[in-house]
Amino acid sequence: MNCVYNYKMKVTLIDVDSIKKCITAARTSHGSESDNMGPKDKKLIRSLIKWKHTSIFEHCSYTFKIEGVSRALLQELVRHRMASYTVRSTRYTLKDLTKDKDIKNANTPTGYKKIVERYCVVPELPDVALKKFYETTAQNLKHILLFLSKYKLPNDLIKYLLPESFKTELVMTLNARSFRNFLKLRTSKAALWEIRDLGHLMYKSIPKDHKILYKDLEIEKN
Amino acid sequence: MNCVYNYKMKVTLIDVDSIKKCITAARTSHGSESDNMGPKDKKLIRSLIKWKHTSIFEHCSYTFKIEGVSRALLQELVRHRMASYTVRSTRYTLKDLTKDKDIKNANTPTGYKKIVERYCVVPELPDVALKKFYETTAQNLKHILLFLSKYKLPNDLIKYLLPESFKTELVMTLNARSFRNFLKLRTSKAALWEIRDLGHLMYKSIPKDHKILYKDLEIEKN
Amino acid sequence: MNCVYNYKMKVTLIDVDSIKKCITAARTSHGSESDNMGPKDKKLIRSLIKWKHTSIFEHCSYTFKIEGVSRALLQELVRHRMASYTVRSTRYTLKDLTKDKDIKNANTPTGYKKIVERYCVVPELPDVALKKFYETTAQNLKHILLFLSKYKLPNDLIKYLLPESFKTELVMTLNARSFRNFLKLRTSKAALWEIRDLGHLMYKSIPKDHKILYKDLEIEKN
Amino acid sequence: MNCVYNYKMKVTLIDVDSIKKCITAARTSHGSESDNMGPKDKKLIRSLIKWKHTSIFEHCSYTFKIEGVSRALLQELVRHRMASYTVRSTRYTLKDLTKDKDIKNANTPTGYKKIVERYCVVPELPDVALKKFYETTAQNLKHILLFLSKYKLPNDLIKYLLPESFKTELVMTLNARSFRNFLKLRTSKAALWEIRDLGHLMYKSIPKDHKILYKDLEIEKN
Repeated sequence: MNCVYNYKMKVTLIDVDSIKKCITAARTSHGSESDNMGPKDKKLIRSLIKWKHTSIFEHCSYTFKIEGVSRALLQELVRHRMASYTVRSTRYTLKDLTKDKDIKNANTPTGYKKIVERYCVVPELPDVALKKFYETTAQNLKHILLFLSKYKLPNDLIKYLLPESFKTELVMTLNARSFRNFLKLRTSKAALWEIRDLGHLMYKSIPKDHKILYKDLEIEKN
Repeated sequence: MNCVYNYKMKVTLIDVDSIKKCITAARTSHGSESDNMGPKDKKLIRSLIKWKHTSIFEHCSYTFKIEGVSRALLQELVRHRMASYTVRSTRYTLKDLTKDKDIKNANTPTGYKKIVERYCVVPELPDVALKKFYETTAQNLKHILLFLSKYKLPNDLIKYLLPESFKTELVMTLNARSFRNFLKLRTSKAALWEIRDLGHLMYKSIPKDHKILYKDLEIEKN
Repeated sequence: MNCVYNYKMKVTLIDVDSIKKCITAARTSHGSESDNMGPKDKKLIRSLIKWKHTSIFEHCSYTFKIEGVSRALLQELVRHRMASYTVRSTRYTLKDLTKDKDIKNANTPTGYKKIVERYCVVPELPDVALKKFYETTAQNLKHILLFLSKYKLPNDLIKYLLPESFKTELVMTLNARSFRNFLKLRTSKAALWEIRDLGHLMYKSIPKDHKILYKDLEIEKN
Repeated sequence: MNCVYNYKMKVTLIDVDSIKKCITAARTSHGSESDNMGPKDKKLIRSLIKWKHTSIFEHCSYTFKIEGVSRALLQELVRHRMASYTVRSTRYTLKDLTKDKDIKNANTPTGYKKIVERYCVVPELPDVALKKFYETTAQNLKHILLFLSKYKLPNDLIKYLLPESFKTELVMTLNARSFRNFLKLRTSKAALWEIRDLGHLMYKSIPKDHKILYKDLEIEKN
């Protein structure tokens, strides 16, 4: 995660369960005593992973608020079905656009750079392509504004003009077993760059004593 | 729940998420401001139920420790697939049996009543039937003990002798949406008496400010 | 479904299970005899719906091939988690674009209308807005082509320029219980127009003797 | 599967989807041509397994009728949540018991052996233990009959006397991805002997051309 980003993804861990819940569940199953996350409990967690008895990790959940991600990322994210999602409605995001005075005046490179970065995720591109990306996307946003304020069309029609780079935000809840699956698939080098960044940020945001649940995945190496 | 039970079911709410998480999610979706569970937030929750937009309730979870329920109940409980279960292994429960000196001497009605109530869930039965139930079940437990200590058979064979009344314990985690479904189906008069009692106890154990999520189900009436 | 569409959604029912499977399951549960989808079996299905015992319908599945739908629809569709999806990779769709000679020459209204309709879903818009939609979207496609053929950027970057109207195709499998939920939510007047059309087309494509599973939903009225 | 069983489990594959559906889905994703389950398609399936892209196998489902399994097995089976179950109600099974004239007269070893094998799953036990198992279980069935016919108690109370060996039957539907998971866990040597036998029988019952979906699991070796 030592690279520089020209976009502003933000992950907030809204809520997290104590890892002790997994221990309580595991100890119920085995009828043994916890040592309050001491060496015995840690050994047990490593064993559960080894025996693929990870259903116990389902008792422990995370809720993330995720901001500044693209609709391209959202398409891939929601394919993880073992999770709960509440996504900000496009309706409300489009309303922001109509109130933004900076768009109409975004005719200069500085002007449209600012506007595009406000509403869209900008991928890392070579300089010439980046300039073209800003131009194209700014034009796109202006057209959307036209459809909103001049033609006064409903959002369900206007959304067809939105670029996949358009920013969205969401609340996502998933349990530690599902998070293991998510991290395994999405922090790999084969994953879309943006979801990979998201995976690493989510992993960074969880408490230190939870990391033991993911140790075998070697996420830092990816 | 004003009736008397001759069995000892115990429900402990190990963990519960703040209901504010549901509000955070709902407000993210609608782009509006929370009034910290004031009248506006309460109205929103009632509306979400009315619009059947209960996926938002998935962000809020409960973890229950459930003790003293029968394997008959367990059969029905785990059919709710939108939940996570960790059940005490029969292996450990059977071990307790071998150490129990009271079983061998349970030849009197008082003796076998005590033993049966220790290991099994006793349904409400008319007097003659109840006496017979204690007798039959005590005999059953003695046979199991014989298989354990004399024939020294493995648990995977002995469990075939266990009666459905045999007590078990488990940790169960489910989200508020799934809990709504559970309560709706299982607090109804058509449900098995024991799971109905469980449903009511679980409902009783959740915080008062969560009850609004279930108000339309009219659980108290069932 | 007697309205005219200016887009080309196509639904093919690739595979469907015999409704008799549901009957076999229901008869197993109740220990009674089927009359081969005669009046008794039909009455049983109506009762299962009334008793909300629709888990029996899970034994019966549909596989649809869905073509010519937008990525805006896809965002909403895949939120139905009780289903299996295989979506055509953008990689392959973008490849088609580079081979298409008609794009570069799409400078006339007729030219860009043809191109936009080939690659995108066109919502029903008032005339002025429709003209502008064609123009904007054609320009967008041209920019994408530029990024593909001139800057030779990878698809994972180019997809950020794609409009939500961009067409995709997928194979979707879901069982009759999940389909009931899908139809209920998505054929309602509150649903996005495109997913509503999809719901109706999917419903139209299933065999006549399956319609009894959905009769209470009164889909034709929506 | 070359061992001898003293119980009568029966697995019938009621319905199975063509494996070609998986190929159709995979080819939709990759935009390539099928060779009708020729070498190219087979190679693709092996690659999907290698890349852990097994969500494509979800399009292909199996429906099994499973008879003559114990309630002990059922407890473990239904823990697989990615499947649909319809289980024969105890109500109907108990009705059979009341009509059975052989029970009352089952006072001889031959008599009670026959009765126990009719209603219960008999584990492989050493001779002495086996004799005791027949005796104990026959006695148990007689008690149940007493509760049914003399005390005329409802089934919801009587089921608490049922031994875990009591036979049940069910219809189970699951997709090929979930079946892979089931087979992996349940054909292993650590699994309960009865569910292991079930796993092997289910695997045996599927069409030969489906076996490629499970080849890496090396089920025959277990």
